[in-house]
Amino acid sequence: MSLYTNLFYSEAAQRILSDEQQLSRMLAFEAALAQAQSRAGRIPDPAAQTIAAACSVQELDIDRLRQETALGGNAAIPMVKQLTGLVRQRDETAAHFVHLGATSQDVVDTATVLQIRDYLHWLLPQLARIEQLLTGLTHTHRQTVMVGRTLLQQAKPITFGLKTAYWLAAVRKSRQQIGQEGRRIVQVQAGGAVGSRNEHITVEVVALLAEVLDLSAATPWHTQREGLVTFGASLGLLTGTLGKIAKDVSLLMQTEVAEVLEGKAAGKGGSSTMPHKRNPVTSAAILANATRVPGLISTLYATMLQEHERSAGGWHAEWETLTDIMQLTAGAVEKALDLLTHLEVDASRMRQNLELTNGLIYAENVSLALADKIGKAAAHELVEQACAVAVAEKRHLKDVLTGLSVPVAGLDTLFAPEQSLGQSLAIIDQILAEDGQ
Amino acid sequence: MSLYTNLFYSEAAQRILSDEQQLSRMLAFEAALAQAQSRAGRIPDPAAQTIAAACSVQELDIDRLRQETALGGNAAIPMVKQLTGLVRQRDETAAHFVHLGATSQDVVDTATVLQIRDYLHWLLPQLARIEQLLTGLTHTHRQTVMVGRTLLQQAKPITFGLKTAYWLAAVRKSRQQIGQEGRRIVQVQAGGAVGSRNEHITVEVVALLAEVLDLSAATPWHTQREGLVTFGASLGLLTGTLGKIAKDVSLLMQTEVAEVLEGKAAGKGGSSTMPHKRNPVTSAAILANATRVPGLISTLYATMLQEHERSAGGWHAEWETLTDIMQLTAGAVEKALDLLTHLEVDASRMRQNLELTNGLIYAENVSLALADKIGKAAAHELVEQACAVAVAEKRHLKDVLTGLSVPVAGLDTLFAPEQSLGQSLAIIDQILAEDGQ
Amino acid sequence: MSLYTNLFYSEAAQRILSDEQQLSRMLAFEAALAQAQSRAGRIPDPAAQTIAAACSVQELDIDRLRQETALGGNAAIPMVKQLTGLVRQRDETAAHFVHLGATSQDVVDTATVLQIRDYLHWLLPQLARIEQLLTGLTHTHRQTVMVGRTLLQQAKPITFGLKTAYWLAAVRKSRQQIGQEGRRIVQVQAGGAVGSRNEHITVEVVALLAEVLDLSAATPWHTQREGLVTFGASLGLLTGTLGKIAKDVSLLMQTEVAEVLEGKAAGKGGSSTMPHKRNPVTSAAILANATRVPGLISTLYATMLQEHERSAGGWHAEWETLTDIMQLTAGAVEKALDLLTHLEVDASRMRQNLELTNGLIYAENVSLALADKIGKAAAHELVEQACAVAVAEKRHLKDVLTGLSVPVAGLDTLFAPEQSLGQSLAIIDQILAEDGQ
Amino acid sequence: MSLYTNLFYSEAAQRILSDEQQLSRMLAFEAALAQAQSRAGRIPDPAAQTIAAACSVQELDIDRLRQETALGGNAAIPMVKQLTGLVRQRDETAAHFVHLGATSQDVVDTATVLQIRDYLHWLLPQLARIEQLLTGLTHTHRQTVMVGRTLLQQAKPITFGLKTAYWLAAVRKSRQQIGQEGRRIVQVQAGGAVGSRNEHITVEVVALLAEVLDLSAATPWHTQREGLVTFGASLGLLTGTLGKIAKDVSLLMQTEVAEVLEGKAAGKGGSSTMPHKRNPVTSAAILANATRVPGLISTLYATMLQEHERSAGGWHAEWETLTDIMQLTAGAVEKALDLLTHLEVDASRMRQNLELTNGLIYAENVSLALADKIGKAAAHELVEQACAVAVAEKRHLKDVLTGLSVPVAGLDTLFAPEQSLGQSLAIIDQILAEDGQ
Repeated sequence: MSLYTNLFYSEAAQRILSDEQQLSRMLAFEAALAQAQSRAGRIPDPAAQTIAAACSVQELDIDRLRQETALGGNAAIPMVKQLTGLVRQRDETAAHFVHLGATSQDVVDTATVLQIRDYLHWLLPQLARIEQLLTGLTHTHRQTVMVGRTLLQQAKPITFGLKTAYWLAAVRKSRQQIGQEGRRIVQVQAGGAVGSRNEHITVEVVALLAEVLDLSAATPWHTQREGLVTFGASLGLLTGTLGKIAKDVSLLMQTEVAEVLEGKAAGKGGSSTMPHKRNPVTSAAILANATRVPGLISTLYATMLQEHERSAGGWHAEWETLTDIMQLTAGAVEKALDLLTHLEVDASRMRQNLELTNGLIYAENVSLALADKIGKAAAHELVEQACAVAVAEKRHLKDVLTGLSVPVAGLDTLFAPEQSLGQSLAIIDQILAEDGQ
Repeated sequence: MSLYTNLFYSEAAQRILSDEQQLSRMLAFEAALAQAQSRAGRIPDPAAQTIAAACSVQELDIDRLRQETALGGNAAIPMVKQLTGLVRQRDETAAHFVHLGATSQDVVDTATVLQIRDYLHWLLPQLARIEQLLTGLTHTHRQTVMVGRTLLQQAKPITFGLKTAYWLAAVRKSRQQIGQEGRRIVQVQAGGAVGSRNEHITVEVVALLAEVLDLSAATPWHTQREGLVTFGASLGLLTGTLGKIAKDVSLLMQTEVAEVLEGKAAGKGGSSTMPHKRNPVTSAAILANATRVPGLISTLYATMLQEHERSAGGWHAEWETLTDIMQLTAGAVEKALDLLTHLEVDASRMRQNLELTNGLIYAENVSLALADKIGKAAAHELVEQACAVAVAEKRHLKDVLTGLSVPVAGLDTLFAPEQSLGQSLAIIDQILAEDGQ
Repeated sequence: MSLYTNLFYSEAAQRILSDEQQLSRMLAFEAALAQAQSRAGRIPDPAAQTIAAACSVQELDIDRLRQETALGGNAAIPMVKQLTGLVRQRDETAAHFVHLGATSQDVVDTATVLQIRDYLHWLLPQLARIEQLLTGLTHTHRQTVMVGRTLLQQAKPITFGLKTAYWLAAVRKSRQQIGQEGRRIVQVQAGGAVGSRNEHITVEVVALLAEVLDLSAATPWHTQREGLVTFGASLGLLTGTLGKIAKDVSLLMQTEVAEVLEGKAAGKGGSSTMPHKRNPVTSAAILANATRVPGLISTLYATMLQEHERSAGGWHAEWETLTDIMQLTAGAVEKALDLLTHLEVDASRMRQNLELTNGLIYAENVSLALADKIGKAAAHELVEQACAVAVAEKRHLKDVLTGLSVPVAGLDTLFAPEQSLGQSLAIIDQILAEDGQ
Repeated sequence: MSLYTNLFYSEAAQRILSDEQQLSRMLAFEAALAQAQSRAGRIPDPAAQTIAAACSVQELDIDRLRQETALGGNAAIPMVKQLTGLVRQRDETAAHFVHLGATSQDVVDTATVLQIRDYLHWLLPQLARIEQLLTGLTHTHRQTVMVGRTLLQQAKPITFGLKTAYWLAAVRKSRQQIGQEGRRIVQVQAGGAVGSRNEHITVEVVALLAEVLDLSAATPWHTQREGLVTFGASLGLLTGTLGKIAKDVSLLMQTEVAEVLEGKAAGKGGSSTMPHKRNPVTSAAILANATRVPGLISTLYATMLQEHERSAGGWHAEWETLTDIMQLTAGAVEKALDLLTHLEVDASRMRQNLELTNGLIYAENVSLALADKIGKAAAHELVEQACAVAVAEKRHLKDVLTGLSVPVAGLDTLFAPEQSLGQSLAIIDQILAEDGQ
């Protein structure tokens, strides 16, 4: 736990990815392997039971295990050694059947997969909650007019609901991608020393092992890492999406914009010496995580060039990189939940900001309406001149046009944001109607 | 075209991604938009026909277009300007309907999607050919024994067919991933200035536009870039996979290993002053591309934090990054095809290398066989001593064991690589049987 | 030249890094090598002269060279072959002395170093111009008050000159870093086939070679790439710095902020349908390049793990990666020059924005002044209450305080931005005074 | 402490970078600030003494601090709050002078700099030890002949001392770079809320503060991060260099090459079931770290685009990224020390491997010697034919040439590796003579 545990990370995810859980999942592999081999008639049933009974993380000497990890190069080697000792204490013979035919990578990879499954059990409901919040915001602000901005410039009116609908669509796609890649990766790893299996790790044993662990069976993937890499990348999609939301919020919170605010919690984001500040602390945390994940993803892809039947370095580089991505993503998710739960929307400020350009954002409306009367070219020219006057004299474009007696009925309508939303509402409704799979 | 065009890149992909093709795809968008708007009764049919007729890349002044791209910030703005001029030369009125209601990003993104489709039309058959070659190699070398290596150490026998079967499985998964993400991304972009559409870009118009271009309709995705990012990442999966193959080949080609060779082409990989060298030139090119793609993928993920309704920089950073990934991947694919087409496999050297450890790679076989006779612990101890003798006296383990008169029948069998393949053949057959979708 | 040549890149740098220049620099190596070997008495002087005379890029068949690059794996092999042919046409004997004792990597690396030197000759004066512009802006706006912003929130007054002074300090440091790494890297590469040199590449020959090319002599660095990597990274420092400037400008250009503007060029950054927009097109281009460079830098570092005496892939991955970094940096530099040359600063809007918080940004001033009268705690409490009233009633803090008859003389002074600049002017002067080395 | 603490990390570095040390360094800043302000006559001396006395990490409630970090967005805010409380318990008045005029970033950045200095105090002597070991290996194996390899192919003889000399040169350059960047970065950060300082943070106070902390004074660098980024990148240079060494070792340890071995420690790198294996466990750990650092460096560069006077996210993303780089580098350094301390070199195997090509690696020697007798062209042709015969008939090239009665005296000499070392020994001596600064 670092000083920044509560700022960047999720406690729940930290528990799932803890050393204890990792070892516990490794032991689950060993217990299940013995069980599968016993059911396949390859080892005595009592031995399997003894092994399963000994598979308790509480009995491991974790400090020693850490030290010996440096000797063997992975955590499975000392874990198996300790487990064998624990089994031997119970039954000398059973000890012969521990980890039978398996290789370290089988244990480590399968444990990782089990942790990913645990992680998804936590993550996917959080994402569903984020989608619910975004759906709620979209319904509430379906017609809350605000200005749309391109290249950081005010462009044309939209509604805040359109913005949140796009956020929703993006989160949903990320969730679907994660779910899909997550489902693919939950497959057992069982290949033996060089990925060729052996008489203890047969198709039948692997099928039973998968059944016990509730994973899918698969041919070994010792140096074929597409599944893990794509899973990690799918999390990057989510942090990118949440980062975009946080980026928008932090920009909308600017003192000069002030259209939304992160919810006020006691002591949050404030400054005793600068009482007017409402720092986007939660957004900054999400942005930080979203900034850190892409580099980790590149590392994940870089580890794919694994030599022969097991890599010297590539596999090892993958472990903590994937965990870091999972941790940073979980943190971003928790922060986003907090952000969206307490988001304060200032609809009147949004409407007020629509007036900042003195009506210029409606120039195209006028131009199009005029075109029907005096032709497109003449209309365009006239409006361009009016805009120049408005800018130079700091007057509202509507006033300028009124002064010019332009032959357009319903000038007020042309300058009403509600009339300038294009298909915003239809798009919102379509996004809301699209059910995720 | 750089000096390294032929070393790292594919001519076919360069054509698909050329400036001319990009502009041609932009014009296809404009033509299709006019057509869709005409079919929806929003613009006159003759105008649509005139616009479509003017959409010819040959008529564009590309040099001027490049210069003006720096002013507007993207290629669509000067393209539309030139196109409007070309249409005006034909028909003043029709010029009013060019690009109607659309925004630059609609053109650029849709053109990118069309280029991706062209690229996939080229790429997927190449991957099918790679899979065919790997299937062929796997059949041919199903029983070609060689040593499996972990952490760059000889471990236990496998067959070369098992190695190529895993290569095949990985390429297949990458191809499936690319195909899937490719199918998802071929959707029209049509959102208008701020992604809210307008009376010229309605659901109906978008549906027709998608129909004309044979893309799927979709809600706008101006600052939701999951599709493009995931597509780019799926290519990274492929270069990683091909890089792993090239890594294995380059290691197997080492002078001291010499189990496979890149095929000899006149002048390829040789050295006039070092006649014995067979440089893995093709593998090196693939490895170079596979080394370069991960950094580009991180950039792609980093661009996701796009502000508001259109980004100032993020969108722009994405363009050439995605193209670079596509180019490097295409180059790796062409090189891999060449590599696998001409790969020379030296089965006798593989068998010979199996003997390098003086039988030690079979120690476990002996240990297991002995265990049935004298118990696991005693067996392990005896074999360990025999190994120590073999190493110290540089004798073959079988000789040492024969000298010790160990009570094991069929010592020759225990030292036969064919008997030590585990489930290699079954795994191969399973991978060959798994048809890609 | 891609469609985006003028948007992202510098023509000058493209010329320096062109294929022709690259070949021309390779030929310069060959000419200099022959000259050095002749001066060292190792080859006949006429042969050296003949070789030097044949070293003309115009005589090379570049298309054929590109094709053969794919066979040999680098451009030096076919270049030497063609050069030898050209020399043979002149003098059969001299042809024996072409490229004598050298290896491809000697040519390629030295040519790269020569191109880097050319690039620095162009780059460093550009940076000096940027520093001049920033120095000018700093002088002009030394006292132009504006609000300082932290976490995108208005915080306290600074001057625009302080902001540009920090920009200046950062550009200066980047320039110094580039200059220093640039000076280090301009060293000859001459190691022969395996970096052990030979009787044709002696210490004496290398010293003469370095002299002819005006590079420093050095022991070979075939697989020690610190120099190139650090040089590339130093460019990343600059693009990061320029990206930070562009980020600030793009934020200051926001419609709601409008404190600075990119200069208006005909047709630049405008929108025919949205006349009020002044898109930060130049800033967006700089931001795009700054977003793309970090991923490329990671690739550069990743290529450092080069095997043995020459790498299979790592070296090859480095070439275009370094060139891309140089190109993107050059583009960012040219754009930054343009940006700063034409930057429009709206001092009155800056002053106006200082009032947006209704005086809250001066709360601390009041608090400190009051503390002297009524103690820190009481002062803090009183000001906090006043702030709350100001926010709730949307009144100016000064009015609220006046109403409360707080015992502070010179309330106007406390609310004057000029009085709240801290040490801004002193810092500016210090930065201006610090001469770069 | 993760399961992989002992595999990838250094205990010493973990202590230096621990939470406790980080807080302790933050407190050091606060104590020094009070002292400096007292010496400048700005706060009462007793207050400064009280503050300094309260600056004890043991008195902080770290759990609460972690929780409140999430509210304020950095660790300085709750630290200052707790410290103020601790001072208040001692002396109500002194509490008014805690952290006077400073901002969170001043504390956090200066503490980071202090930790970097601690880290360098540990790191640089380790690097000196690595250089000593490499110097020793270079002396010992100055004349130990082995084959040089390019593109993973045997090329020509070198000595193992030449290889280690190049390793030495690279480590030395990395150390110099780190030392230089390290010296630059050890400067105080003191800018106040918006980097403009104030009456409590004057030039005089900053000078005194720097003096107390033994740092250099500097203008503030709140959003100018060149120093930290370049420092982080200089560590990447080192991990790249160590990774290259580990890559070479892992390749030289291959069963088929077996020229060097990682030293045997009890239980290290072995396999109970595969007694012949000597896994390059230490090299794999170094390679893993070296694979992970480049992605983190790209993140560091990406964080440079920090908005205005303090970033929302960029600064936050930098913290743990830099720490991770420092931790992974320290781990790689410790592992490299271990690797080089216990490296076993098999000189006879090196010599034996020189014979693997049946003399072909000496072909060029013969060619050059022959050229003097029969001309270069004839010589080349004759040797090429002889090589072809040698390959086809699997005979030694010397035998073939003897059979052809080539007119070359001293054929044995031409096939002696000692005669084929080029300038290896001279290069070694030059590198050994170059004293690092």
